[in-house]
Amino acid sequence: MQLETQEKVRRRRRSGSKPQRSSAPGQNPHLYVPYITRKIPPYDLLGDEGLSQIEAACDRILSDIGMEFRDDPEAVDLFRKAGADVTPVAQNAWNLRFEPGMVRDLLKTAPARFTQLARNPEKSVEIGGDATVFAPSYGSPFVMDLDQGRRYGTIQDFENFVKLAQSSPWLHHSGGTICEPTDIPVNKRHLDMVYAHMRYSDRPFLGSITAPERAADSIEMCRVLFGESVVDQNCVIMGNFNTTSPLVLDGVTTKGIREYAAAGQGSIHLPFLLGGAVSPLTMAGACAQSLAESMVSCALTQLVRPGAPAILAAFLSSMSLRSGSPTFGTPEPALGSLVMGQLARRLDMPLRCAGSFSTSKLPDAQAMQQSMMSMMSAIQSGGHYILHSAGFLDGLLSMSYEKFVMDTDMCGALHAYLNGFEVNQDSLGVEALAQNGPGEHLFGTDHTLRHYETAYWDSGLNDDQPFETWDEQGGIDAASRSNQRWKATLQTYEAPPLDIATDEALKDFMARKKASMTDMWY
Amino acid sequence: MQLETQEKVRRRRRSGSKPQRSSAPGQNPHLYVPYITRKIPPYDLLGDEGLSQIEAACDRILSDIGMEFRDDPEAVDLFRKAGADVTPVAQNAWNLRFEPGMVRDLLKTAPARFTQLARNPEKSVEIGGDATVFAPSYGSPFVMDLDQGRRYGTIQDFENFVKLAQSSPWLHHSGGTICEPTDIPVNKRHLDMVYAHMRYSDRPFLGSITAPERAADSIEMCRVLFGESVVDQNCVIMGNFNTTSPLVLDGVTTKGIREYAAAGQGSIHLPFLLGGAVSPLTMAGACAQSLAESMVSCALTQLVRPGAPAILAAFLSSMSLRSGSPTFGTPEPALGSLVMGQLARRLDMPLRCAGSFSTSKLPDAQAMQQSMMSMMSAIQSGGHYILHSAGFLDGLLSMSYEKFVMDTDMCGALHAYLNGFEVNQDSLGVEALAQNGPGEHLFGTDHTLRHYETAYWDSGLNDDQPFETWDEQGGIDAASRSNQRWKATLQTYEAPPLDIATDEALKDFMARKKASMTDMWY
Repeated sequence: MQLETQEKVRRRRRSGSKPQRSSAPGQNPHLYVPYITRKIPPYDLLGDEGLSQIEAACDRILSDIGMEFRDDPEAVDLFRKAGADVTPVAQNAWNLRFEPGMVRDLLKTAPARFTQLARNPEKSVEIGGDATVFAPSYGSPFVMDLDQGRRYGTIQDFENFVKLAQSSPWLHHSGGTICEPTDIPVNKRHLDMVYAHMRYSDRPFLGSITAPERAADSIEMCRVLFGESVVDQNCVIMGNFNTTSPLVLDGVTTKGIREYAAAGQGSIHLPFLLGGAVSPLTMAGACAQSLAESMVSCALTQLVRPGAPAILAAFLSSMSLRSGSPTFGTPEPALGSLVMGQLARRLDMPLRCAGSFSTSKLPDAQAMQQSMMSMMSAIQSGGHYILHSAGFLDGLLSMSYEKFVMDTDMCGALHAYLNGFEVNQDSLGVEALAQNGPGEHLFGTDHTLRHYETAYWDSGLNDDQPFETWDEQGGIDAASRSNQRWKATLQTYEAPPLDIATDEALKDFMARKKASMTDMWY
Repeated sequence: MQLETQEKVRRRRRSGSKPQRSSAPGQNPHLYVPYITRKIPPYDLLGDEGLSQIEAACDRILSDIGMEFRDDPEAVDLFRKAGADVTPVAQNAWNLRFEPGMVRDLLKTAPARFTQLARNPEKSVEIGGDATVFAPSYGSPFVMDLDQGRRYGTIQDFENFVKLAQSSPWLHHSGGTICEPTDIPVNKRHLDMVYAHMRYSDRPFLGSITAPERAADSIEMCRVLFGESVVDQNCVIMGNFNTTSPLVLDGVTTKGIREYAAAGQGSIHLPFLLGGAVSPLTMAGACAQSLAESMVSCALTQLVRPGAPAILAAFLSSMSLRSGSPTFGTPEPALGSLVMGQLARRLDMPLRCAGSFSTSKLPDAQAMQQSMMSMMSAIQSGGHYILHSAGFLDGLLSMSYEKFVMDTDMCGALHAYLNGFEVNQDSLGVEALAQNGPGEHLFGTDHTLRHYETAYWDSGLNDDQPFETWDEQGGIDAASRSNQRWKATLQTYEAPPLDIATDEALKDFMARKKASMTDMWY
């Protein structure tokens, strides 16, 4: 059977009537896109009644318990003027309560969908609606690979991951703090990270949020890269902000959010909810709280600059109640992500949700079982911006080189999944069955020859060969293949072209900024 | 944070007000069930129009191309009398065509849902409706484990897998030919396999289908185990039959189907469709063909004995068009499985669909990434009987001991997933947030303490510990943990009690049957 296929396919290809396909596996060029336009519906888990109950609980949280704002009287003032009930609770801390519906009203000016420009216009992405964008994992202090094990991340690692991301057709966005470059002072590393995204990728990226002035630096570097007027009129960078759950927004966060919003730039508003620790364990409660916190955080952007792009976000996690350790890639948060997708659609806002989550410490079977459950929920939820799409291991403590390769390949499979299920006379293929009739193979039918190049996802990593072939070739596992792959990718990586004057201007900006500050290491 | 949890939880538990939980991981006793009753809706991929187009294509296949029957004039006669258009095409081969709607009409007597009795009445399963049943993988000639690699399966391996399945709370059915016991003659091994299911499991199981007389033996052994009247009035065994795609039903298959149906026993009707080889590559066409073949095969049961339990089935696979090798756990068949679920619901019949598919040759990251994609489609499709839920590796050529352990744990996670998302005042947990207010952990809230034992899936295999703890404990991967696990499980396995007289009668039946035949090895 196998020989027959190859032979027939070769024969037909030699005849010259078909376009040539690269002989390397995993090309799938028909699936290459700057971002995915989904062709399948999201998975609606709950009916309207359940969703309305969650929204009512969200309203109760905001009206009866409120959110605490800290160290940012300006943000508090903005909400007070918009109608929030403000009560001081400590020095530089205020409890804000919101009448049911008030926050939802504030969000009416937030765009349901927006474009984030890339320096390469062909790689600009759409966020919201039927668009899906994959970005690398974010925020790990450690990196790991099979050769050196786990260690603190460096700027070299950071640049490596930017290069690996840029080299994969299955990511669309360069992400942000892919790993912490711990060899650079804390108050300067944002410059190196933003520069690495600008220099080694030509895709959109995230900027710094760890201090308002670092957010400002990130945006200023974009003005150098894109030009001032482009930045004024477009979203070219986003900040990824965390609430301090439960129900707190600290001043560093709100000042950063205001910085991005004032510049018309994008922002992501993420409650990181470890169930039982900082949210109710029950998913309905976690979803209500996540919605409440993210909505208030998003609303701040609209108070600063109506129409500023803002992304609702959810990171639902479970917890091992015996050890207190967070658990990732588990079934309950997967269901919660589906519900967050429904809630975001009712709010008509873009959603960041889930990712390739895992608690495994190795790029092993556990890692991909958990990641797949979590990533399926991300795309089935209708999530729009999927941060943590690649590299996530060790409960987000480590970026794994090998897992990065595995995850990007999985992201490719998800391109095929989201490409949907076409029903028409051609795809129904009755004439293909009729051509040879019962009992006869379809290898050589016109239908097969017409579709064979695009019908199926062709993994660039998984080994689909017969056992004997695989065994003769060394019999190695997916982790070892991934180890070979990332090294080969880095060796052949070529940076996308960047105007020399722009590059010099960026370097000059960084040098001046670095010279103006003493190093800080915490 | 972690210490605080443990301490608070312990303190509360010492106070004695809460039920005690086993300290061993992965117990999740609240999820133990003889079969799953799903609490989440299936994932509806297509709208009515797309589904109607597929059904129309199915009708065209059956009316314009037809199915070929071989070597079973009695089956052909049954269909002729029911109105099929029969044309001889060769010696002992007939082409049967069916007016649109005819096969669908024949299926109206097939039950939408039925019970398969287990010898332990507490383990009887429901098949159809909102019930989901997981069974081990089926039909591999090889077995593999980390210690010995790949080798031909033996009856010892077969018994081991029956014991491992019986030991897992996350499977519901003992399956059938879990692996081929190649050390037993081909014409006798069905006796040993059926006996192993009866002796080492107390769950429902599948019987032989490789020859009509072996099917009869399987049913006869059930009469010994359950008693004649029980077998006459209940489904106590099922046969798992394959069509010969494309569009052929051979005589061994149809005679076996008639054997099971005549005895009122269950049967599964599976087209094994390798896209591009024995079906169109395009999923719409594969679904139309799968529906056509399975419907005709199912209809035979109703011609033999109206009301006999029959399960519609689909095994959709992709193919590497470069090598001709089948590929498993890929995105297109996952979408196809969702559509097959919709088609089965419109037909109001139980569905067997998908499983833990993989082409990996090791229990590695590839294995579980592919398995998870495939199993998610199985349960999201609304599939009722999920054969191949555990152990599948190497494109079904090998049953893996380690993968079996991984898959059963994943099946546990899917119990939690199918347990759904509860929305009520308790699960919304607003009072849990209100109890301590913004900025305060929820570890010690009444809500957390009330729910912590059942809120989250607690894997018995995955390592969710901090890196340091995991490292100190040897830093092993999921495959090594699984290797330890299956050995420990076999060591502590205890066979469920079986009446001695029944056991003797079964052994006597087998001895007589074996003595009556010379060994056949092919």
